[in-house]
Amino acid sequence: MAAIIVTIMLIPQSLAYAMLAGLPPATGLYASILPLLAYALFGSSRTLAVGPVAIISLLSANAVGLAHINSGLNVLTLSMTLALLSGMLMLIMGLFKLGFIANLLGRPVVTGFITAAGILIALGQLKHILGIPLGGHNLPELAQGLLQYGRHTHLLTVGVGVISILFLWWARAPLTHVLCRFMSKNSASALSKLAPVSAVIISILLVSNLDLNQHGLKVVGDIPSGLPTLAWPELSGLLVSTLMPSAIMISLIGYVESISVAQTLANKRRQQIDPNHELLGLGAANVASAASGGFAVTGGFSRSVVNYDAGARTPMAGVFTAVGIALASLYLTPYLSLLPKAVLGATIVVAVLTLIEPNEIKFTWKYSKHDFVAMMITIGMVLFVGVEAGVMAGVVTTISLMLWRTSRPHTAVVGPVAGGQHFRNIDRHKVEQFEQVIALRIDESLFFGNVRYLDNQLNELLARNPCIEHLILMASGINHIDSSAVESLLEFNQRLHDQGIKMHLSEVKGPVLDRLQRINFAGQLTGTIYLSQHQAWQELTKPC
Amino acid sequence: MAAIIVTIMLIPQSLAYAMLAGLPPATGLYASILPLLAYALFGSSRTLAVGPVAIISLLSANAVGLAHINSGLNVLTLSMTLALLSGMLMLIMGLFKLGFIANLLGRPVVTGFITAAGILIALGQLKHILGIPLGGHNLPELAQGLLQYGRHTHLLTVGVGVISILFLWWARAPLTHVLCRFMSKNSASALSKLAPVSAVIISILLVSNLDLNQHGLKVVGDIPSGLPTLAWPELSGLLVSTLMPSAIMISLIGYVESISVAQTLANKRRQQIDPNHELLGLGAANVASAASGGFAVTGGFSRSVVNYDAGARTPMAGVFTAVGIALASLYLTPYLSLLPKAVLGATIVVAVLTLIEPNEIKFTWKYSKHDFVAMMITIGMVLFVGVEAGVMAGVVTTISLMLWRTSRPHTAVVGPVAGGQHFRNIDRHKVEQFEQVIALRIDESLFFGNVRYLDNQLNELLARNPCIEHLILMASGINHIDSSAVESLLEFNQRLHDQGIKMHLSEVKGPVLDRLQRINFAGQLTGTIYLSQHQAWQELTKPC
Repeated sequence: MAAIIVTIMLIPQSLAYAMLAGLPPATGLYASILPLLAYALFGSSRTLAVGPVAIISLLSANAVGLAHINSGLNVLTLSMTLALLSGMLMLIMGLFKLGFIANLLGRPVVTGFITAAGILIALGQLKHILGIPLGGHNLPELAQGLLQYGRHTHLLTVGVGVISILFLWWARAPLTHVLCRFMSKNSASALSKLAPVSAVIISILLVSNLDLNQHGLKVVGDIPSGLPTLAWPELSGLLVSTLMPSAIMISLIGYVESISVAQTLANKRRQQIDPNHELLGLGAANVASAASGGFAVTGGFSRSVVNYDAGARTPMAGVFTAVGIALASLYLTPYLSLLPKAVLGATIVVAVLTLIEPNEIKFTWKYSKHDFVAMMITIGMVLFVGVEAGVMAGVVTTISLMLWRTSRPHTAVVGPVAGGQHFRNIDRHKVEQFEQVIALRIDESLFFGNVRYLDNQLNELLARNPCIEHLILMASGINHIDSSAVESLLEFNQRLHDQGIKMHLSEVKGPVLDRLQRINFAGQLTGTIYLSQHQAWQELTKPC
Repeated sequence: MAAIIVTIMLIPQSLAYAMLAGLPPATGLYASILPLLAYALFGSSRTLAVGPVAIISLLSANAVGLAHINSGLNVLTLSMTLALLSGMLMLIMGLFKLGFIANLLGRPVVTGFITAAGILIALGQLKHILGIPLGGHNLPELAQGLLQYGRHTHLLTVGVGVISILFLWWARAPLTHVLCRFMSKNSASALSKLAPVSAVIISILLVSNLDLNQHGLKVVGDIPSGLPTLAWPELSGLLVSTLMPSAIMISLIGYVESISVAQTLANKRRQQIDPNHELLGLGAANVASAASGGFAVTGGFSRSVVNYDAGARTPMAGVFTAVGIALASLYLTPYLSLLPKAVLGATIVVAVLTLIEPNEIKFTWKYSKHDFVAMMITIGMVLFVGVEAGVMAGVVTTISLMLWRTSRPHTAVVGPVAGGQHFRNIDRHKVEQFEQVIALRIDESLFFGNVRYLDNQLNELLARNPCIEHLILMASGINHIDSSAVESLLEFNQRLHDQGIKMHLSEVKGPVLDRLQRINFAGQLTGTIYLSQHQAWQELTKPC
C-alpha cells in the first residue's frame, strides 16, 4: 500500500526533478529504480524513501552546467559522473566513519541554505511557467534574464502554469480539510497526495484533445520506454577534479538532509539509525543511480513521511516502489510525452515553497544573533552568488563566530556565599572577600583561541588587586586545556612567581588533570591543585 | 647605551636580512630608520626593537619572488608594496580591534612554522656559503639546486663561511662564559653581541688587504650612501590582489611574533601592552618602511632582549637607534662594499638556528598528540611545499582538531555519593542509582558540531535504560548552547514526551539560562529546570 502511494507520488516528482537537474525526464525515472534497491540493501532506515530531491537536483544542475561549458562533455554523462563521485564519497565516509564531517553544517547554515535554494528553485521555474528561455544560478542572473526575455512571455503557458500552481497549492491543505469530513485523516492526506498525478493526467488529456502543444505550449516530448541500460560513467582525472567540490557538497548536504528525516521517523517508533550505515546506503544508492543513467539522489522528506504514514515498516516498501517505477518506465512513458513542462514547473514550485520556514528564521533571530548572522550570510550568498558559495560562507561564518565566542570567555571573580560551600560571582552576590586571596572562575575550555584574551584578563586582575598573594583559578568550567594554553599558564605561573604571588587551581576535572600530570604541571605550579574551591579557600584564607 | 649596542647589532643584521629578502643591502638600513621612529610614535612597548627580522624577510622574499615572475615589476618595488599592504592591514586591525584574528595561530602552528622556516632559511644560505646559485622555496627545490650546482662549490667562499659560522656560534655561549670570569654577566653578554660586527670588520679588512674578491669571493658591492628618499610604492588593483594573501600572512605572523616579545618583556617590569595599540605601532612602522625604500619589518626577539637588558626604559632608545643607523648609512656604507656575502650568510645561519626549539616539540608530543600532529603538519608543509601553505595547513588542522574534540564531548551518568550533595560518575565511584531517574552530566558546550553525537548518546542511554521515567541533564559543564543545539534539545524533549519520559535540566549557568528564557525554553520543557543537581535528585527520587 505504502509502495503504491509513493510510486504514484514519485512519477511526477522524478520527472520534475530531472527537469530541474537539466536532464531528460526519463533519467528521473531511472534514478528512482536501482537506487531504491541499493538503499534497501545497505541502508539502515526502514521508512526512508530515496530518490531525486529538489535541492540535490539544483546542486547537480549548477555543477554540471559549469563543467559542461568547460569540458564540452554532455550533461547526462557529467550528471552520472557527479552522482558516482558523490556516492563514492558517501561510501568512503561511511566506511571510515567520517560522517561527523557533516557536523560542520550547523542548523543556521542548513536552514538558510534550504530557504534560499528553495527561493532560487521556485524562481528558476519561471522559465517553464512563463515559457521563456531563462537561465542563471543566482538572483541577479535570473533578474537579468527576466528583463531580457520577459516580453516573450507565452500566455497559454502562463495560464497552464498558474492554474497548476493554484490547484496543487489548494490540494495541500484546504483539500485535505474538505476530505477530512468524509473520511479518516490518513486517507484524506493520502488522497490529497494524488493531486500532482491528477494534474499530470488532466493536463495530458487536455493537451492531446486540444492540441495545445501546437499552440506553443512546451511539452516534455518523447520519452524512450524501457528499463535503464547499465553503463559506467566517464571518470578522468580532470573531470574528477572539476566535479569534486560539488560532489563533496552534494554528499554532505544529501547526507544531512536524509539523516535528519530518517532519524525523525525512526525515533517515532523508538528505532535506531546508524549514521555510518546510513552513509553506506545513500552511497550505494548514488553509485547505482550513476550506473543506470540517473543523477544524484538522497532521502526525500515528503515522500518518506508519506511512506511512514502509509505504514511502511520494512525496506520492502522501497523495493516495491522500485518495481512500480520500473513498470511505469516500461509501459507509461508513451503517455507522458504530451505532459506540459509548465505543469512540472508548478509541481516543483509548490514542493519547494514548503521548504521555506519563516518560523525557523524568527526563532534563530530570537535565540542567537550570532546564528542569525550566519543564517543571513548563507541566504544572501546563496541568492546573490550561488549555492556552493553560500554553504561555504555559512560554514566559515559559523566556525568563525564560534571561535570568536570562545575567544572571549566569561570569567568571574568569586567568593563563598556567607557560611556555605557555594562560590558565586562577587559582582552578583554578597560574598566573602579577601584582599590577599582572589579566586577567578573561568567558564570556558582553554585553547589557542582564548589564551591571549585570558592573559590580558589576568594581567588586568593583578593590576586591580595590588595586595594579592594567592590567585586561585577555579576550573569547574574548563573541559579541556590545549598545549598553547598550558604553556601560557606555565608562563603566567612563572610571572606570578617573579612577583611573589602563588597560583593555585581548584575543581580541575579528571580528564584535564590526567593530561596536566603528563608534563608534571603540579610540580611546576607555585601553588597547589585543590580538589574543591571550598578546600582551597579554607586553606589559603585561614589566619596563620 | 642601549641604543648604541642595538645599532651595532642592527647594522650586520639589517644587511643580512635585506639579502635574505632578496634586496640590495642598503634597503636593510633604510628599513631600520623611519620604521623605528614610526613605532616609537605609535607603539605601546617601551623596549621592543623594530626592524628587519629573518622570518618576515623570508616571507617577503617568497611572495615577491612569485609576484616578480608574474608581473615583471622589479623586486624592490614589490617589496615596498608588500610592506605597505602589510602595514595598512595592521593599521586596520588595530583601528577596528581585530587583533584577535591572530588568535587563530596557535602555539603548535607558530612553533612549527618558525622551526621549519628556520631550517629553510639556514639551508637557503648555502647559496652564499658555498658560493653557488641556489634558489628554492622548499626542501625539494633546494635539494634539486644542490644536486645541480654542488660541483661548482667555491672553496675560498666555503672557508670564509664556515669560519664565520664557527666564530659566531662560539661567540654566543662559550665566549660569554669566558668573559664572565673577567667582568659582570651583563657586560659579558653585551660584549659577545659585538661578535657579528667584529666578523664584519675583520672580513672587510681581510678582503681589502688580500684582494679576496679578485679570487671569486662574492662581496656585497657598492652601497649608495645617503638617507633613503621618500617615495610611495606602486599600488594597482592587480598588484594588491596578487600580494594580499602574503600581506595577510606577514601582518599576522609579524604581529604574533612581536606581541609575544613585547608582552614577555613588559611583564617583567609589570607594564601593560595594549595589543591594538601595538598593531598601530607595527602598522605605522611598515608603512614608514614602504615609504622609505625598505621592506616588511616587525619586532625582533634578540634585539629587543638586548635592548631590555641594556636598560632601555623609554621609546627614546628606538629613536636613538634610528639616528645611529641613519649616521651609518650616511658615513659607513663605502666601507661595507667589500663585505663578503658568505659572512652575512653565516650571520643569518647562526641567528636562525636558535629559532629551532626541540624542547618545545618534545613538550607538545608529551602533552597533546593532537597538537603534535598539527605541529608536524605545519613543519612538513613548510619544508616540502612552502611557508604560506604550511601556516594555512597548520591553522586548518588546529581548528579541525578542536572541532573534532568538541564534537565528541565527555559525558557521564552520575549519582550522589552516599549521603552527600556531590554527584559523581557511576562508572568511577560508588553512588546511589535509580532505574527510573537517570542523570547525565555533559562536559562540553552544546553547539552545531556535537549536536548529532549527543543525540546518539542520549538515544543509546534510553535504549539501555528501558525503565527510565525522568532524565536529568546536568549542565554544570555547559558554557553555551547555540541555536542548532537548542532546537535539537527541544526535539529530543518532544520525543521523550512521546515516550512518556520527562526531561529536566540542572545546574544551568546564568548566561545560558538567560538565553534559554528568550525562547521560553522552560515552558516547552516537559520537566523542570533545577538550580542544583542535589535538588533535582531529591525531588524526583522521593517516594510519593
